Amino acid sequence: MVDYRPMWTELDLDLEKHDMLLQALPGMYESTFLTQENRPEAMDYFDFVVGEIHGLRVKELMDHKAAGGKVVGLYCVFVPEDLILAAGAIPVGLCAGTQFSVPDAEDVLPRNTCALIKSSFGFKVGRTCPYVQASDFVIGETTCDGKKKMYEILAGYHPTHVMEVPQKKTPLGRELFLAELRGLRAKLEAETGMDITADSLAQATAAIEAKRRALKRLHAIRKARPVPISGLDALLVTQISFYDDPVRFTEKVNALCDELDVRMGKGEGVATADAPRVLVSGSPMAIPNWKLHRILEESGAVVVGEESCTGTRYFDYLTPENDGSLTGQLGAIADRQLETHCACFTPNDERIEDILTLAREWAVDGVVHYSLQFCHTFANEAVKVEKALAEQDIPLLRIETDYGDEDVGQLKTRVDAFLEMIRP
Amino acid sequence: MVDYRPMWTELDLDLEKHDMLLQALPGMYESTFLTQENRPEAMDYFDFVVGEIHGLRVKELMDHKAAGGKVVGLYCVFVPEDLILAAGAIPVGLCAGTQFSVPDAEDVLPRNTCALIKSSFGFKVGRTCPYVQASDFVIGETTCDGKKKMYEILAGYHPTHVMEVPQKKTPLGRELFLAELRGLRAKLEAETGMDITADSLAQATAAIEAKRRALKRLHAIRKARPVPISGLDALLVTQISFYDDPVRFTEKVNALCDELDVRMGKGEGVATADAPRVLVSGSPMAIPNWKLHRILEESGAVVVGEESCTGTRYFDYLTPENDGSLTGQLGAIADRQLETHCACFTPNDERIEDILTLAREWAVDGVVHYSLQFCHTFANEAVKVEKALAEQDIPLLRIETDYGDEDVGQLKTRVDAFLEMIRP
Repeated sequence: MVDYRPMWTELDLDLEKHDMLLQALPGMYESTFLTQENRPEAMDYFDFVVGEIHGLRVKELMDHKAAGGKVVGLYCVFVPEDLILAAGAIPVGLCAGTQFSVPDAEDVLPRNTCALIKSSFGFKVGRTCPYVQASDFVIGETTCDGKKKMYEILAGYHPTHVMEVPQKKTPLGRELFLAELRGLRAKLEAETGMDITADSLAQATAAIEAKRRALKRLHAIRKARPVPISGLDALLVTQISFYDDPVRFTEKVNALCDELDVRMGKGEGVATADAPRVLVSGSPMAIPNWKLHRILEESGAVVVGEESCTGTRYFDYLTPENDGSLTGQLGAIADRQLETHCACFTPNDERIEDILTLAREWAVDGVVHYSLQFCHTFANEAVKVEKALAEQDIPLLRIETDYGDEDVGQLKTRVDAFLEMIRP
Repeated sequence: MVDYRPMWTELDLDLEKHDMLLQALPGMYESTFLTQENRPEAMDYFDFVVGEIHGLRVKELMDHKAAGGKVVGLYCVFVPEDLILAAGAIPVGLCAGTQFSVPDAEDVLPRNTCALIKSSFGFKVGRTCPYVQASDFVIGETTCDGKKKMYEILAGYHPTHVMEVPQKKTPLGRELFLAELRGLRAKLEAETGMDITADSLAQATAAIEAKRRALKRLHAIRKARPVPISGLDALLVTQISFYDDPVRFTEKVNALCDELDVRMGKGEGVATADAPRVLVSGSPMAIPNWKLHRILEESGAVVVGEESCTGTRYFDYLTPENDGSLTGQLGAIADRQLETHCACFTPNDERIEDILTLAREWAVDGVVHYSLQFCHTFANEAVKVEKALAEQDIPLLRIETDYGDEDVGQLKTRVDAFLEMIRP
């Protein structure tokens, strides 16, 4: 077994605190994932990646840095990974999914901030995330007030570059975002000393598109009845897509899909035919936030889709055709990113349409709307989601929670009652 | 005494609920304002305006509508009043300052929303604000997530037009806002059937500028020691500026300032020379939100300034010189509005500078930072304000509260301790 402690020391991690974090993870992972019945064999790779979450992948990033490359951290699907890759840098989604880092954040940030933002920030101030420590800078965005203002404070702890995302989908909003992409390009070129060319960008976009297509393929497979993969496993795969090497990851997801295709051919599934099929929609779930999926699936449901930034809002959007010039590609990337049906936009009725489409095509028995506490954008959209689903007689359970365990019992009770109601 | 009930019926107010609201106000106003010692005589006018808050001014709006004019509601300093006036419409700031309307909002909106937003929305759904009822449409803006998403829901209850405000102060952000101003112009022209011309806009801007200059004059007077007007009275004047007739209001503010000039000449003040001078900075205070000022001044402090949207962020910014063409004027209005040092921008370091300047030039003994609970933007900026003030050895008290009375005792205790510490 490799000793990563010298690397963590080099990354200035708080080793004692970091040990506590790493000690908690295996037990949690085992009880959440490894106890599932009839898992696809190809999940082995993803189990391995999680097992090495602060080890092997970080080592790869450090090797890249040792060879003169750069590592760029990000927190949001609006940051275009392909632009970063095109500059020879590695984009990596940063730690943001656990209560463990929240108390460190609450020493500085307002407590009435969502758990995802507090966890992100706490990982930096507490020095417990090797990814942010390894990153040469992080790219923030203005997708919500909480993150927008947190990044200003984060900039006092780590180099931070903030991209503006417009709030209405207008021609001028597109121009503004395009200017932000050009600004990011200049920033990346200055940091890496490499030019982003039409060729390097086309290659990078192809790699990211292949990843998205693999995730879309996995997502489409979940239409099957019985569904051949659990919601927990599918969510995990999407979560890992944010930090794993994109080419290797894509291969592994396609291998998983190949196995699932065989299962489908045999009518083999992970849940009984009468297990309620649930769509989860709302705030993103950063690794290791598996709380809601675990409650749902332990209670007998099977989650067949995530309308989420760790779900369809990450992989649904592909790059429009363009003339292949750098300008044309940047414009297409702007269009792709702005297509995102995120609650940061006003209005965002496309998201309601997405939920209705997913509910219909994935044949769900009910929808669970998930808002992180203090997440204004998704909590408000829940009002509109509720109205739209009621009009279509699609059952809805609205959950608002954080990363703590205090409400698990209460959530289980509510989930059980909901599943009882929607059981086919 | 005029019977306004026929007018309120015409406005489809919930008369029973509205009666309850109006019954509460006089007692609250009397105990807050009329018990103050040595008030300027010119405050009589503002007392009268508050006494007629749902009467005479609403009647003026209804008369304007009867003559074919339009009334346009707004909630935020980013909406340019002069553009509305230039279309022959009357801009009016809408009710947003009381716990009374919060429960109505909580039937629909997420509870973890700031009191200002809940109160605004509750006034509409509860039909207790004659101003929103009288308005032909309201203009929202994207200055925070809570309002941005509330406006989408509000649009189901009242005609709503939302303007995007950029989040970074960049050239493209200015272009975007200018496009929003052009869009608002088109909307106003379509609604009113009147053209906004260079002349009508210049006249309207002159009226708004005169109002701002009068408020700036009042603000400057508060540098005096002893200060000749209480913080409560000065706040009230700014609050009234959002809905009173601008020309009449300007005259009355200047008359008040004339009286205060005489007081200053005589060294006459409203507080003892050793009363701690306090600057209040943070979230806006819509009428009748006088909670913090009342606690501060009843505890012996005198508030000498509000770094707030109901304070300097409303009246500090004047329209830059321009060529007088409609295009030139619109550009200047964009520049004026975007100058606003609001926490919606990232970064917003100019606000920190403003607070330091106000603290120095208004010779304050301490600053109270006021955040409405769940207001992410100002709550996060409080972190930076605290750091900046600590570096200058300026005492700071951070308050986070809502419109309820439950925490008044606790706030008084904290305020008393703070004043004891900063008493000169």
